[in-house]
Amino acid sequence: MKNEFMSRAIDLSIESVNKGTGPFGAVIVKDNKIISEGFNTVTSTNDPTSHAEISAIRNACKNLNNFSLKGYELYTTCEPCSMCLSAVYWARIDKIYYANTRSDAQKIDFDDSFIYEELKKNIKERKIPMIQMMRNEALIAFELWDKKTDKVKY
Amino acid sequence: MKNEFMSRAIDLSIESVNKGTGPFGAVIVKDNKIISEGFNTVTSTNDPTSHAEISAIRNACKNLNNFSLKGYELYTTCEPCSMCLSAVYWARIDKIYYANTRSDAQKIDFDDSFIYEELKKNIKERKIPMIQMMRNEALIAFELWDKKTDKVKY
Repeated sequence: MKNEFMSRAIDLSIESVNKGTGPFGAVIVKDNKIISEGFNTVTSTNDPTSHAEISAIRNACKNLNNFSLKGYELYTTCEPCSMCLSAVYWARIDKIYYANTRSDAQKIDFDDSFIYEELKKNIKERKIPMIQMMRNEALIAFELWDKKTDKVKY
Repeated sequence: MKNEFMSRAIDLSIESVNKGTGPFGAVIVKDNKIISEGFNTVTSTNDPTSHAEISAIRNACKNLNNFSLKGYELYTTCEPCSMCLSAVYWARIDKIYYANTRSDAQKIDFDDSFIYEELKKNIKERKIPMIQMMRNEALIAFELWDKKTDKVKY
């Protein structure tokens, strides 16, 4: 069954290339059934966050009417980039099956490895400058959230 | 002007708490003008990727009909989580202004710090298991992409 799910993700990645978008596909599975699919649509939808995994997560959550994918598994044709891996954590997915690596992605000019390295650095050492300001004012919303008794935690 | 942009992001974060969603707001700016806004809608839209920064990026790209935000700046009420910071890199944003830190977010029970630490680890040491399979089959799409002469790179 696992091969079948990854094969479907691979089919999506090939379709994606044929459509002119990035060579990545993903599916989300529970109880031996695919419940959502995704492929890279960054350039076709003008959405830099629309990687295969993020698309599959969004589709799954929409289908399930739930922001949690606890109990679900992700099959993706490439090791998730740092954006998609973080999204997997936020979505509470249980397990990831992947095929190509970030190093394979680097060889065809995708920035996965570069961004992973940037994230490890201290704020002041990164290529994109990050400047702190107005923390005191911004803390107000955090305090409001902290005191809120009827909030939906995630 | 900078204070004005961050103030707007803070207003969005407070509005977000009042709406019952996470205490985060963000705006994207060019030429001293806000061109898009976003706030956290994870629980209201059942989308675990719908953080303030990702929403602001998606809205900006949609408004501009472009997947690149080169030349734009992000103002966000909290240091971006690893998902959002990676999205900033993918979107090619020039500069980030932020207010609260990942440590402030941790204090009100958000997983930003935890996920940053997970990403630094080797694959086998992470809490979410990651299992490689079918790399040879998946490489086909990468080769197709590599040979494609009319692709839109990003």
